[in-house]
Amino acid sequence: MNVENRYVTIKHPIEGKPLMSDFEVRTEQLTLEIQKGSKDVIVKNIFVSIDPYQLNRMKAESASQKASILSSCISPGQKIDAHGLGRVVESGNDKWKKGDLITGFLGWEEYSLVKPWPEPNKIEAVDQFPLSCYLSVFGNSGLTAYAGLFHIGKPKKGDKVFVSAAAGSVGNLVGQYAKLAGCYVVGCAGSKKKVDLLKEKLGFDDVFNYKEEPELMSALRRYFPDGIDIYFDNVGGEMLEVAIANMNAFGRVAACGAISEYTDKKKRARIDMMDVIYKRITISGYLASDYIHVYPDFVSMTSEHLSHGRMHAVEDISHGIENVPSALVELFEGVNIGKKLVQVSEI
Amino acid sequence: MNVENRYVTIKHPIEGKPLMSDFEVRTEQLTLEIQKGSKDVIVKNIFVSIDPYQLNRMKAESASQKASILSSCISPGQKIDAHGLGRVVESGNDKWKKGDLITGFLGWEEYSLVKPWPEPNKIEAVDQFPLSCYLSVFGNSGLTAYAGLFHIGKPKKGDKVFVSAAAGSVGNLVGQYAKLAGCYVVGCAGSKKKVDLLKEKLGFDDVFNYKEEPELMSALRRYFPDGIDIYFDNVGGEMLEVAIANMNAFGRVAACGAISEYTDKKKRARIDMMDVIYKRITISGYLASDYIHVYPDFVSMTSEHLSHGRMHAVEDISHGIENVPSALVELFEGVNIGKKLVQVSEI
Repeated sequence: MNVENRYVTIKHPIEGKPLMSDFEVRTEQLTLEIQKGSKDVIVKNIFVSIDPYQLNRMKAESASQKASILSSCISPGQKIDAHGLGRVVESGNDKWKKGDLITGFLGWEEYSLVKPWPEPNKIEAVDQFPLSCYLSVFGNSGLTAYAGLFHIGKPKKGDKVFVSAAAGSVGNLVGQYAKLAGCYVVGCAGSKKKVDLLKEKLGFDDVFNYKEEPELMSALRRYFPDGIDIYFDNVGGEMLEVAIANMNAFGRVAACGAISEYTDKKKRARIDMMDVIYKRITISGYLASDYIHVYPDFVSMTSEHLSHGRMHAVEDISHGIENVPSALVELFEGVNIGKKLVQVSEI
Repeated sequence: MNVENRYVTIKHPIEGKPLMSDFEVRTEQLTLEIQKGSKDVIVKNIFVSIDPYQLNRMKAESASQKASILSSCISPGQKIDAHGLGRVVESGNDKWKKGDLITGFLGWEEYSLVKPWPEPNKIEAVDQFPLSCYLSVFGNSGLTAYAGLFHIGKPKKGDKVFVSAAAGSVGNLVGQYAKLAGCYVVGCAGSKKKVDLLKEKLGFDDVFNYKEEPELMSALRRYFPDGIDIYFDNVGGEMLEVAIANMNAFGRVAACGAISEYTDKKKRARIDMMDVIYKRITISGYLASDYIHVYPDFVSMTSEHLSHGRMHAVEDISHGIENVPSALVELFEGVNIGKKLVQVSEI
């Protein structure tokens, strides 16, 4: 059987913030049939994940090479692999059968032909939580939050934790984990709606709208009169500078993203190394993929908290493959609240 | 008995690089007598240590507060405490008797009245190495090098190690330790004389004169075609930026000083957080004082290597208390090679 498979690609390398005009949706004919002897699997995608790091793969070659540690650069016209969740429609592989729900590296497209290696991970316990959770709170964003807070931040009860981009896919979970660990948690976000959600629903001790603060340095002094012990950095740039200036001795920075620097490298943080040295601060960059070994602990803790209503999954879901470009563009405009997903077919 | 005690002080808070005109030598009358009931000790100083961090204590209040984590700010006219080595001339303390050689926090002066707390540490094994070694290779500089390389850098055989200010008191020892740990070691320094010493006497694999490199980025690419695993940072600023740009995945930066930033905060490093995150780099500021617990291991390893000629103590000794100001000034001109000390009396 033949189907039309729509996929998203870039028209040219992207500089600065992504624009709708950088993308196009193309259509290919796909035969839903596995070649004899092949172990391929064809998946009909249901959810695809929209993540800021994808922009770094789309830049001109020199800039995108850094991102290639995580995954290869994207050339114009090429399909874009991305985390996703879908249902097997054809399988040449004993491990997967038609109808199985799987998650793994799929793509910004309606159907994905998956090679047996790297294998998509079979979902377990799909009956317990909504499917989208497997790309949000149980996906890369969840593991990033968990690993960064617990393995880099190493929170102790009473620690003062600052989270930037706190309404983002990772930040909101970091704050929730930190509260459960007995920390004092302040986040920053870019709209009243985000601030309210974090304070009222997710239990942050305090949240401020950084767009309404004329001076970040004095804002942090006000929110952290006793200094910051752990800074969870999603944004880099000036916020990182002032967070370090307000850190306590032996402070830890878990650096998982630098979204303010992705679109403008002039915004790089000018870090005061005097602070870093005298206060013995550690700044650690990390990727969730280095923490696969803690995945079982992460899932066990997280599902326990979710089941008992002590944590909440915050998702922002658009519909239709044609809305993937706007979903990415809006990520850099700060429109989304929580994990940004696009649902490309019905469950 | 009364003696004249000459001591060094600052005339005013210092901005930018220190100048001779910032300092003065004052004289006080000191009675070499311990008050009845006091546990004080009077020490005739032999060597005093000259360290870049002292400048940070001499800045205007707001700037010197950072340095106050390590030791208090210095006000104009005030005596300046500093590591030193001297001989007890009067003692009201059972632990110390006249004639004992001691090392600890003394001061930039000819005699120091030492309060029993914090106690000066009694020197052991003074017969094995020249006395000056207890302020250089066995002093704070040595422990800084040892702790930074082994406890933060965590070198594995074959690791590529870059050391800035490699002819400085700490840098030269880091390079020597790293060679003994089986690493490939490249240093940078500011004169041909320094470069030659590091290559010919101390066994660095390569050394370059950063003043002769039109472009630091390409210099590091040339000296580290396979990237840097450990960067031992004494200088901050641009060198830190380019070192991070040339680091390998899981690279470690041991930040012990930022001398280029001490005299000009405009020189702060603009660190590319994309490198830090994608390459999972860790930048750790630290102070030797946090590693007192490894002091016995450090002394045992170091004395073993020194005794067998596998390590060398490099010292740069001036004479006379009146030469303390020029010694500090020259530190920021890059004049010294190895540990800068001033000998203020005969042994």
